[in-house]
Amino acid sequence: MNNFNFHRPTDIYFGRGAENNAGEICKKHGGTKVLIHFGGKSAIKSGLIDRVEKSLTTAGLSYVKLGGVQPNPRAELVYEGIKLCKKEGVDMILAVGGGSVIDSSKAIAMGVPYDGDFWDFFMGGKTPEVSLPLGSVLTIAAAGSECSNSCVIDKEVNGIIKKKGSNCQANVAKFAIMNPELTMTLPPYQTACGCCDIMCHVMERYFTNTKDVEVTDQLCEGILRAMVAMIPRVMKDPNDYEARANIMWASSLAHNNLCGVDREQDWASHRIEHELSALYDCAHGAGLSVIMPAWMEHVMDHDVMRFAQFANRVFGCAMDFAHPEVTAKNGIAALRALWKSAGLPLSFADLGAKKEDIPTLLNNLGIDDHTEGHFMILKRPDVEAIFNIAANYKD
Amino acid sequence: MNNFNFHRPTDIYFGRGAENNAGEICKKHGGTKVLIHFGGKSAIKSGLIDRVEKSLTTAGLSYVKLGGVQPNPRAELVYEGIKLCKKEGVDMILAVGGGSVIDSSKAIAMGVPYDGDFWDFFMGGKTPEVSLPLGSVLTIAAAGSECSNSCVIDKEVNGIIKKKGSNCQANVAKFAIMNPELTMTLPPYQTACGCCDIMCHVMERYFTNTKDVEVTDQLCEGILRAMVAMIPRVMKDPNDYEARANIMWASSLAHNNLCGVDREQDWASHRIEHELSALYDCAHGAGLSVIMPAWMEHVMDHDVMRFAQFANRVFGCAMDFAHPEVTAKNGIAALRALWKSAGLPLSFADLGAKKEDIPTLLNNLGIDDHTEGHFMILKRPDVEAIFNIAANYKD
Repeated sequence: MNNFNFHRPTDIYFGRGAENNAGEICKKHGGTKVLIHFGGKSAIKSGLIDRVEKSLTTAGLSYVKLGGVQPNPRAELVYEGIKLCKKEGVDMILAVGGGSVIDSSKAIAMGVPYDGDFWDFFMGGKTPEVSLPLGSVLTIAAAGSECSNSCVIDKEVNGIIKKKGSNCQANVAKFAIMNPELTMTLPPYQTACGCCDIMCHVMERYFTNTKDVEVTDQLCEGILRAMVAMIPRVMKDPNDYEARANIMWASSLAHNNLCGVDREQDWASHRIEHELSALYDCAHGAGLSVIMPAWMEHVMDHDVMRFAQFANRVFGCAMDFAHPEVTAKNGIAALRALWKSAGLPLSFADLGAKKEDIPTLLNNLGIDDHTEGHFMILKRPDVEAIFNIAANYKD
Repeated sequence: MNNFNFHRPTDIYFGRGAENNAGEICKKHGGTKVLIHFGGKSAIKSGLIDRVEKSLTTAGLSYVKLGGVQPNPRAELVYEGIKLCKKEGVDMILAVGGGSVIDSSKAIAMGVPYDGDFWDFFMGGKTPEVSLPLGSVLTIAAAGSECSNSCVIDKEVNGIIKKKGSNCQANVAKFAIMNPELTMTLPPYQTACGCCDIMCHVMERYFTNTKDVEVTDQLCEGILRAMVAMIPRVMKDPNDYEARANIMWASSLAHNNLCGVDREQDWASHRIEHELSALYDCAHGAGLSVIMPAWMEHVMDHDVMRFAQFANRVFGCAMDFAHPEVTAKNGIAALRALWKSAGLPLSFADLGAKKEDIPTLLNNLGIDDHTEGHFMILKRPDVEAIFNIAANYKD
């Protein structure tokens, strides 16, 4: 087990109707003038933005609004948000949405008290010392950004979309308002993409070279098993509150680092996937559904017993003690079968990605200049092989 | 799943040598004059207090010291601590010890900014609005007080020791410094008592009537399985760092309420046990080792499938689908066998408790005036039956 620091002070308000206390919660955490940051028109149409505005007004807070966050959130809107906050004297940001809205909010929160370009925090080397207080009303269980220290933003640089992350304590939200009912209207595909993202956040931590991490292994496996149980329920009945609630709580625990505090983590699949969603503008969870199993197949031999443990403990695959690699492969197959049953893509073809783009994807990743991952260190031929496995999948 | 609020802002510094940064950590959290609160002479003899003092001095902080906290911490020392803090202008408390020291520190922290008697917060009805900032250097993995909102204090009232708890957000520590190496010198019996307490903190949450709590069920079972794996290791080799580390991290996760946020919890066993440790001054974990299985046997019929799930998922007992009660009983037997192997008491006789004291224990609990527990509501005959099961255990 590695030494670690763990600090997740996010104050969580979970359950039916939680968003109706948004005003009091913002006030409790010191907000006086709030930026309500959100995505498309669905949050307006559903009446959610109205309810949040009403709650803020009732609590005696003033606010401004900025909508228009898109999936794979863009730097342009972040710059606009920073300008607006400075102009209006905003002292708290309330993200109303999913991971994209929260990440856009985090970037704005970092940028407001900073004199330079917020993008400095995404190009490596610089860490913000302060950021505006931030909270969320979560509408999608997926990214886990409501309780994580992560933030991912897309910026066009020299005609190429660069997707970059910033991970730091300043990115941890002050509060999260989580009502599973708000996720019931999500289309099945988006629900499934969210579930895939949640599982991958756990798996990026689970596949590790760090030994003797039994407690966190158990947490990883437990959350994954809960997802395996809940995915068929939510796909069958989108209004299953209990399934929605378990998935929503899993989304936070999967990415607040509880599952990975004490270990070396991997994150190659996430970084490789980012090139897919940058090039094809596909959902992050959809890209992961294609890349993660391909990554697993490529790296399996690095520690077959780890993959056998995954198969046995998460999917209940019988352990083949004479041939652990059989158990390991059965686990990957079980994962793909689960995702397929949820309507997720399993191949380049399903995703609309093209095999002939692989050189472009590799170049965009800039893999010649660095390696990816920690479980197994990946160089260009490895990532190329992973893309090829994904491109060759037939089902 | 029930609605919930979850807020555990404790900043955790975990790993080898962590205590050497105590000064910087206190400073980061705003301390300028610190009360170092501790127990007996072992913390001095081991050099731990010296190292902590040195770290505080290096960080430019001043401090006063108050030792003498005993297991089942007493109100008298809390009053002394409050007086000392007020006199010296202390603005932060650093508990160096286990649950008793941390609880004594929490009580002092509540009492300093309060004009009345700190005991008001333990007699029900009153909740402190503020308390002094508090952190710990943990030396025993057991109570989980380092990350919990609980505090339990003994006070002699009319010749009877009253053991009372106060659970509130003000009791949540600002930080916890957790070096598993510091627990290596604990005697085996104390180590085992701690492990029992950790498991019981999970079990008090696990046995619930709340349905559809799959994620937290998985967390409960996972932490329990990790304990089942680690207890034999640490009993065999007290210097097994990895086992100590897993147990220490489990102690925090078992009682920071992560395992129970979304459910009705029980806590009858803890409350019943408190009468044993109050009357016989036995270790809390030792009392639990006797009472928890007795409670389980008495309430099992309330939800046999829950106990079968416990047996199957935590101890790997084969599920007897025709007779789930057989599986359920096997789980209780497996738990007692584990605790026996760790040298824990399993009966009144092992504990030095007497069957003829049962009326006294019942009266001290005041069970005629209220009920205990939530999984199954316990009245006097129930608690009497539980005590009798515990008194009649032969092994």
